[in-house]
Amino acid sequence: MKKILNTPENLVIEMCEGMIKAHPDKLKFNKKHKIITRKELNKDKVTLICGGGSGHEPAHAGFVGKGMLDVAVCGDVFASPSTIQVYNAITETESNKGTLLIIKNYSGDVMNFEAAAEMAEEDDDIIVAKVYVNDDVAVKDSLYTVGRRGVAGTVFVEKIAGALAEKGALLEEVKAVAEKTIANVRTIGFALTSCTVPAKGTPTFSLNEDEMEFGVGIHGEPGIAKEKLISADELAEKMVAKLMEDLPFVEGDEVALMINGLGATPLQELYVLNNSVNKELDKAGIKAYRTFVGNYMTAIDMAGASVTMLKLDDELKELVDAPSDALAFRC
Amino acid sequence: MKKILNTPENLVIEMCEGMIKAHPDKLKFNKKHKIITRKELNKDKVTLICGGGSGHEPAHAGFVGKGMLDVAVCGDVFASPSTIQVYNAITETESNKGTLLIIKNYSGDVMNFEAAAEMAEEDDDIIVAKVYVNDDVAVKDSLYTVGRRGVAGTVFVEKIAGALAEKGALLEEVKAVAEKTIANVRTIGFALTSCTVPAKGTPTFSLNEDEMEFGVGIHGEPGIAKEKLISADELAEKMVAKLMEDLPFVEGDEVALMINGLGATPLQELYVLNNSVNKELDKAGIKAYRTFVGNYMTAIDMAGASVTMLKLDDELKELVDAPSDALAFRC
Repeated sequence: MKKILNTPENLVIEMCEGMIKAHPDKLKFNKKHKIITRKELNKDKVTLICGGGSGHEPAHAGFVGKGMLDVAVCGDVFASPSTIQVYNAITETESNKGTLLIIKNYSGDVMNFEAAAEMAEEDDDIIVAKVYVNDDVAVKDSLYTVGRRGVAGTVFVEKIAGALAEKGALLEEVKAVAEKTIANVRTIGFALTSCTVPAKGTPTFSLNEDEMEFGVGIHGEPGIAKEKLISADELAEKMVAKLMEDLPFVEGDEVALMINGLGATPLQELYVLNNSVNKELDKAGIKAYRTFVGNYMTAIDMAGASVTMLKLDDELKELVDAPSDALAFRC
Repeated sequence: MKKILNTPENLVIEMCEGMIKAHPDKLKFNKKHKIITRKELNKDKVTLICGGGSGHEPAHAGFVGKGMLDVAVCGDVFASPSTIQVYNAITETESNKGTLLIIKNYSGDVMNFEAAAEMAEEDDDIIVAKVYVNDDVAVKDSLYTVGRRGVAGTVFVEKIAGALAEKGALLEEVKAVAEKTIANVRTIGFALTSCTVPAKGTPTFSLNEDEMEFGVGIHGEPGIAKEKLISADELAEKMVAKLMEDLPFVEGDEVALMINGLGATPLQELYVLNNSVNKELDKAGIKAYRTFVGNYMTAIDMAGASVTMLKLDDELKELVDAPSDALAFRC
């Protein structure tokens, strides 16, 4: 295993501290519970919390900031944060307008976030709403989920719910717009190489030199199939078709598009893929209203990418465009 | 070779088009000469041009924007743009205040940028100034340079000269602040893996599973030595020592710090390295006034990182902090 690392055991803490040292003006870190929050919390807005296993950087701490999240809870690598971590995140950041948990649909996260919400509601009278992101069209159920997995589409949910919360909206309004986003967002990914979980030290799966894993998840879990690697244009055609088969995007639709690197993919290749995806959208008469190309929801050091399409209406457009000063999502 | 690609021959064009399609509101692309410019050029400011071989994305097109560059000239992968490309970049973006070329110190770039400047001055009466970035402390001369190589420190030169140019400063003032930045910026890097140049299709060099290339350049050219891979803390100690040995940073100094990924390094590891580097700075009594962690100056798909330290005074601090809306350097 070749990594910039001291020990796998201290990785998450050191990473969070490295993040705080880079941005002491913006972020605070509760080391005991591995919670990263905005430096200044606003009690008069709905608190937005996301989290999950580490290894998906910049998700989610990179999306903490004005116009996006208030709090990110950091689990160990590819492991849900514990109920106690999430509970502390909720109670420490209580606002006058309630709390929304944005949960990626993985069994561990669902269990721990729900238990924490229950505790906070019962013991502390905090009103906690929950949404479940399940944008990955690759598989119906998976190794770690009942139902679909939540992947890069989560970033759009954070952005849009974050923008509405920042305007002072009520908890039910913020929850409703998050659910509308979830209903309209779809993702499909593929891997060229496996990731290596630091505590394990060897790749999670193997691929031949001419193979890709199509429909891969963000933890190196299997996708649809091992297939022959194809060109960027062919990949784009296959991916856009898969997304459109699932949600009937139609001619004239406007979408927010995310071309997301899985951790070890050079930006060069992501822009090539964006070019190819745009050709497919042109064919279908769909317009990319806003495009985001980069590493947003990664799988440690996996090479590969995902494509996310979010169908927009006027409300979602305005919220996608709203300002955000989160480290990894400036707009 | 596993890449998201159609053909190596079309890579740079497709990448540039993918970039323009993602940001049609901000960038324009001259396909014939592979020049990316701001959508709206301001004739009343010094024009700032940078460029070089492709493969270093987001450098340099990602730094085109208000407060940074006006123009990026894109060569083929790891090959200087031609004289004609640079000449066209200069003549197309002429302003009333002259043009500054920011040249990374590689023999090919130096030759082509200088010839282009001469042509533009002689044939078109455009006043062209030049600065040469040579921040890499690893080697004195190298495979591709007389003198030191220009690497990630170039980004700070673009930022600082860009901020002053944006205020309407004169060409000699912008050149002077770029040279002050160059005099005060130092970088050292290391690779955990080689990059693979698409047209070649195989890795440029090989390393054993327990080895790193210390002092590597951004084209996969050799550095100081192949050495045993060490921990993040040990790496930080070695790198900061190397930088401080070259430029006498002293107790009380404030620096702009860049922890730069070389293309395939997960953000997770860059934040761990930032944490380790900060411990070294603390020991030396040096303060990181601003920190930038991410992929800024890459070597295609190389795993590894570089650390850049720029010694700041009040003028440089103000210019580092000035707004930039470049895609890859929002502040």
